[in-house]
Amino acid sequence: MEVTSGSRDKTGFFTQGRWWFKALPVKLKANMVDMARSLRKLGQEDPRRVVHSLKVGLALTLVSTIFYYLPLYKNFDPNAIWIVMTVVLVFEFSVGATLGKGFNRGIATLLAGGLAVGAHHLTKHLGRVGEPMLLGLLVFLQASISTFLRFFPKIKASYDYGMLIFIMTFSFISVSAFRYDEIFELAQERLWTVSIGGAACVIVSILVFPVWASEDLHNLIALNIEKLGNSLEGFGDKYFKRTGGEGCKDDKEFLEGYKSVLDSKTSEESLANFAAWEPGHGRFPFRHPWKLYLKVGTLARECACRIEALNGYLNADMQESSEVGSIIQEACTNMSIESGKALKELALAIKIMVQPSSAHSHIENAKSAAKNLKSLLKSGIWKDIDLLKVITEVTVASILIDVVTCTEKIAESIHELASTAQFKRAEPTLSPEKLNSGQMQCVKSSQILNCPHVVINVCE
Amino acid sequence: MEVTSGSRDKTGFFTQGRWWFKALPVKLKANMVDMARSLRKLGQEDPRRVVHSLKVGLALTLVSTIFYYLPLYKNFDPNAIWIVMTVVLVFEFSVGATLGKGFNRGIATLLAGGLAVGAHHLTKHLGRVGEPMLLGLLVFLQASISTFLRFFPKIKASYDYGMLIFIMTFSFISVSAFRYDEIFELAQERLWTVSIGGAACVIVSILVFPVWASEDLHNLIALNIEKLGNSLEGFGDKYFKRTGGEGCKDDKEFLEGYKSVLDSKTSEESLANFAAWEPGHGRFPFRHPWKLYLKVGTLARECACRIEALNGYLNADMQESSEVGSIIQEACTNMSIESGKALKELALAIKIMVQPSSAHSHIENAKSAAKNLKSLLKSGIWKDIDLLKVITEVTVASILIDVVTCTEKIAESIHELASTAQFKRAEPTLSPEKLNSGQMQCVKSSQILNCPHVVINVCE
Repeated sequence: MEVTSGSRDKTGFFTQGRWWFKALPVKLKANMVDMARSLRKLGQEDPRRVVHSLKVGLALTLVSTIFYYLPLYKNFDPNAIWIVMTVVLVFEFSVGATLGKGFNRGIATLLAGGLAVGAHHLTKHLGRVGEPMLLGLLVFLQASISTFLRFFPKIKASYDYGMLIFIMTFSFISVSAFRYDEIFELAQERLWTVSIGGAACVIVSILVFPVWASEDLHNLIALNIEKLGNSLEGFGDKYFKRTGGEGCKDDKEFLEGYKSVLDSKTSEESLANFAAWEPGHGRFPFRHPWKLYLKVGTLARECACRIEALNGYLNADMQESSEVGSIIQEACTNMSIESGKALKELALAIKIMVQPSSAHSHIENAKSAAKNLKSLLKSGIWKDIDLLKVITEVTVASILIDVVTCTEKIAESIHELASTAQFKRAEPTLSPEKLNSGQMQCVKSSQILNCPHVVINVCE
Repeated sequence: MEVTSGSRDKTGFFTQGRWWFKALPVKLKANMVDMARSLRKLGQEDPRRVVHSLKVGLALTLVSTIFYYLPLYKNFDPNAIWIVMTVVLVFEFSVGATLGKGFNRGIATLLAGGLAVGAHHLTKHLGRVGEPMLLGLLVFLQASISTFLRFFPKIKASYDYGMLIFIMTFSFISVSAFRYDEIFELAQERLWTVSIGGAACVIVSILVFPVWASEDLHNLIALNIEKLGNSLEGFGDKYFKRTGGEGCKDDKEFLEGYKSVLDSKTSEESLANFAAWEPGHGRFPFRHPWKLYLKVGTLARECACRIEALNGYLNADMQESSEVGSIIQEACTNMSIESGKALKELALAIKIMVQPSSAHSHIENAKSAAKNLKSLLKSGIWKDIDLLKVITEVTVASILIDVVTCTEKIAESIHELASTAQFKRAEPTLSPEKLNSGQMQCVKSSQILNCPHVVINVCE
């Protein structure tokens, strides 16, 4: 009995094994196809990724070739490889990140090298017992202190990599002092190689299809504000089951857009940090007010929170609307859609860097809708009403009033940004002569934001 | 006239200069005191930071000393310094992060070294023109492909450092092949040094006051849920101007606690990522369900968003409360405080790893308060009412009903976590005999969470 069961098990095992082997090529093929698809998607989402990868390959190959063909001087030999390492470690996606890392690496190498050479000169007369003990103590002290300093939020944000390189270079040169006497040359060599590698990164990063963190932060903030606008417009359409409204149609995507806004704090902060390292370029002068972008971002997240709360009522069982309910709904639709439009105008104004004057009228509309609603609530239409039937509407209305306030705050912060960063003044209307004379090139917003019904004319 | 003004300017300049010099020591002293204060605060907030810094110093000094006293074998010399570098780069705050980085560095070095040696064997017969060209091409290809792969979210989360080391080691060894013939020894040496350095980090990290990312994630989630609970309790107290309530008193801190919950996504994700690297230890076996913690975290953020929306009404001008208003307020207070208590019980249950049975009654209370409120809204008390006067109350009530639903969802997810991770079953009541017999050691919650009025007994 046991034997039979065992042999049956065995047969089963082999059959399964055969199946598995037969299925293997199919599975492998499916996996490969999946992988190729995600790779293509990754590249299509942001083609700069492909360019960046090629740039890193290029910089590394250039440096390697230099290493092969140009032996600078004899002593340079074994450690010249540090150039290659520096390129791998310093080359980042954006110019700002590359500059920040390069600066950190350079300054930290200089300081740590200098200190380590100093420490060597202090200790070299102490003999074979005293020297390693004192050097060991120094290594311990600097590593402990520098590691602790890395916990400082400000240092962590901008100089973390520098602290790491500081610890590494100091230890490296001090410890090398145990073995080699030409420690000054070693420190010098390290500084040279790091400088050459860092310079190669910075040059390739800036000259070959540069990716600016400043541009990314600017676009991210504009996109987030736009997403909030789309969500509000979509909400106005969907919640009140309006059909044929002017809102953008792709509901799901628009409605959920605000969720990514909630999670964008980290990327905004790191982009602002990188942007601060970047030199003035294109539309962004040096000392562009990056901190104001973060302020707008914070307010955008507060607004996104309100939209998240609103979203909870989107799927609530809608009661049969009473007459009163539909009056509230009308006001809500107006508030929602007008705030949405205002946010989208603001987003566009950031994107093309003009004063956000056109948003003003939408905010006023939203505010007057809120005011109407309030006076409506005060009026006598509420007698003999089942409040439970309109509680959803009342709550939505109340949160929307809050959203209008949020929108106003966002508008204020964007105004502050626009005036500090000296955005251009958009002409409210264009005279036909100017249009015909061809002196101005007008940009259709639909080319910039992908929502076809917001069109304002902007003059460059 | 001009001369006078010039000399006056000069005098002014010198006076100012003297002032500045006089003020310098005072300013410097103030800065130093400030710095010392922030350093002390940094250490007091989390004393493990001090311990970690000392550990890094210790590991580095140990490795340096070994480098000095134990010349393993002759060839080892110049590159043994890589041990020191590995220690600096791999030693992270938590065991999981250190293990992850060590594993990444080890495997990447092994793979890249193997491939580079293979590439060298392929190309070494091609002569002084062909070899560097083909090697350069290979360096270009691997650097570009690996850099592109780093954009994959999954790879970025867990293997980013490995990819970097892969690019670096492959380039390093390939490029060295231009100059040296003993490339196999070079690759071997690199692998050895990285292994020794990595092992030193892992050993010190695990054996000397280990900091477990798993523990941190566990505590962070518990703390966040607790903060939500405190905010809700505080809201119940403050909004309805209750005095002498049982809620925790330090209003401002408790009310604002939820804000940090909103921003904790990144830390949760990276902690979960590190925790997955950690071996089983203490209360956390290998394959503890870390992903469920992230689920709880996501729901907590959704709840925090509702509380943020609620908070907008905290400072709204409170109208003179009508009778009806105070009836709603009563129900709101109950919902808020009961949800808050439920969340705090849930937090405690996570913290001490017991089944969260005691939260059930609070959730039921909150739900029945919500139900009461709904029936209240349906009743006839609303005739002749100025809705504008109670709109804030109605909105708060409605959002609170949503918060109760959120709390229930959080409770469900924590139940799922508790049963998957096999938390202990807490005995609902303790018989006096058991208490007196001393068979059980009961933990007062106040020792764990810092809110004195939640006390449940947990038996170990």
